[in-house]
Amino acid sequence: MNSDVTPGRFLQLTALANFPLVRAGDDLAELIRQSLDSHRVRLENGDVLILAQKIVSKSEGRLVDLNGVKPSDRAQALAAKCQKDPRFVEVVLRESRAVLRARPGLLVVEHRLGFVCANAGIDRSNITGKDAEGEWVLLLPEDPDASCRSVQIRLQQAAGAEIGVIINDSHGRAWRNGIVGVAVGVAGLPALADLRGRMDLFDYPLQITQVAAADELASAASLLMGQAGEGLPVVHTRGFPYPLRESAMSELIRPKEQDAFR
Amino acid sequence: MNSDVTPGRFLQLTALANFPLVRAGDDLAELIRQSLDSHRVRLENGDVLILAQKIVSKSEGRLVDLNGVKPSDRAQALAAKCQKDPRFVEVVLRESRAVLRARPGLLVVEHRLGFVCANAGIDRSNITGKDAEGEWVLLLPEDPDASCRSVQIRLQQAAGAEIGVIINDSHGRAWRNGIVGVAVGVAGLPALADLRGRMDLFDYPLQITQVAAADELASAASLLMGQAGEGLPVVHTRGFPYPLRESAMSELIRPKEQDAFR
Repeated sequence: MNSDVTPGRFLQLTALANFPLVRAGDDLAELIRQSLDSHRVRLENGDVLILAQKIVSKSEGRLVDLNGVKPSDRAQALAAKCQKDPRFVEVVLRESRAVLRARPGLLVVEHRLGFVCANAGIDRSNITGKDAEGEWVLLLPEDPDASCRSVQIRLQQAAGAEIGVIINDSHGRAWRNGIVGVAVGVAGLPALADLRGRMDLFDYPLQITQVAAADELASAASLLMGQAGEGLPVVHTRGFPYPLRESAMSELIRPKEQDAFR
Repeated sequence: MNSDVTPGRFLQLTALANFPLVRAGDDLAELIRQSLDSHRVRLENGDVLILAQKIVSKSEGRLVDLNGVKPSDRAQALAAKCQKDPRFVEVVLRESRAVLRARPGLLVVEHRLGFVCANAGIDRSNITGKDAEGEWVLLLPEDPDASCRSVQIRLQQAAGAEIGVIINDSHGRAWRNGIVGVAVGVAGLPALADLRGRMDLFDYPLQITQVAAADELASAASLLMGQAGEGLPVVHTRGFPYPLRESAMSELIRPKEQDAFR
């Protein structure tokens, strides 16, 4: 038998129920600590927490009121092409490096953080802003890796254990239906697990050598978070099978020159 | 609070250790039943089993010896373009409807089953064939949904519980690094969970309405299977949060006319 065959492997995910609604300025690490306490979850080395993008963005006040947005000529032309609100498109453009696809109902961009996604990851549902009259939209965190790192450090200090933190969001795919959870920020766990040099069961080099481990865990957590989004925005996981290490979301971003679909 | 906020949600994945090496003609459902027994896992309503594509393909004898393959002119031209073995490319073409991208080291096709993937999902590692001298490659199952259905029916009869079955494989993505687990066959669980009509926390219609639930669970299971592949090729999951129903892998395949990247 191969030495990788350990006697049973387990992955356990727990969505933290009754997580409070998050508002700008809230101390997210403290809210998570309290919620873990109330669930009697004691963090252990190797545990990973997955945070829904919305609660991180909200705690950081990443809200924009469309009523205060003046669309540029470029945004207006693009909005006509994809049949979206020109003010919304203006905000998307401000968060983007490049527009990759625009057709009715679809606006795919390269986000300023480097990854490809629809609408620059900007949400309109599950949003109430500072002013109930506003038409609020929610941007991604300014620096999701830094947001993860901040929560990681605070919770590690409180728990005395080394953990990983992921911010997840739901992205569409080029050629498959439906959205899946992906990592848009990471701290403390390999975004991309590199298996180069490992052999298969018959001692041939593995063909597939880089696993998007943080995306796979982000997908697993998404299943539990559901799409009501803010209802279950924090998932605790035990049993992530790769050793923790420093990392960055950028590991998951394919360089443009290797992107097979541009 | 939203009614979706239940008091805690859990997802538990268990990789079945010491699963035997699978050979052509093996009764896969029986091997799984025995392995579940030895792990003292009693199937319950709503449980989902994820099977690595390789063991399903092997049990169905989907092996091809490249020594017996004569590449066509088309395969030879394409092999030169993507710098792969012409015999391998010939087998890929036989399993494909269309070639979408070919460049050195990369061959992306539309598989005859409809989904887009590299090399038509054909593996070269972890393969021993009927003849140790052969250069064996392994094709996907002839009809993965039917393979799932067959295992599902057998295990349901044995356990007296309604379960779902997924065959997973690892696919690359267009614009993100690394592979992730996806579903290439399903039975008994929604491949695509349709949330249309649901409201968000603030009673606005959800923006995102179709979740690739089977892909998300396939990714979670992939984490445990690792890339040694055949070492941990069966994962049992409890807590899949969507109601079971009849389904087909084709739910996950985006119609060509909606594919943003062709």
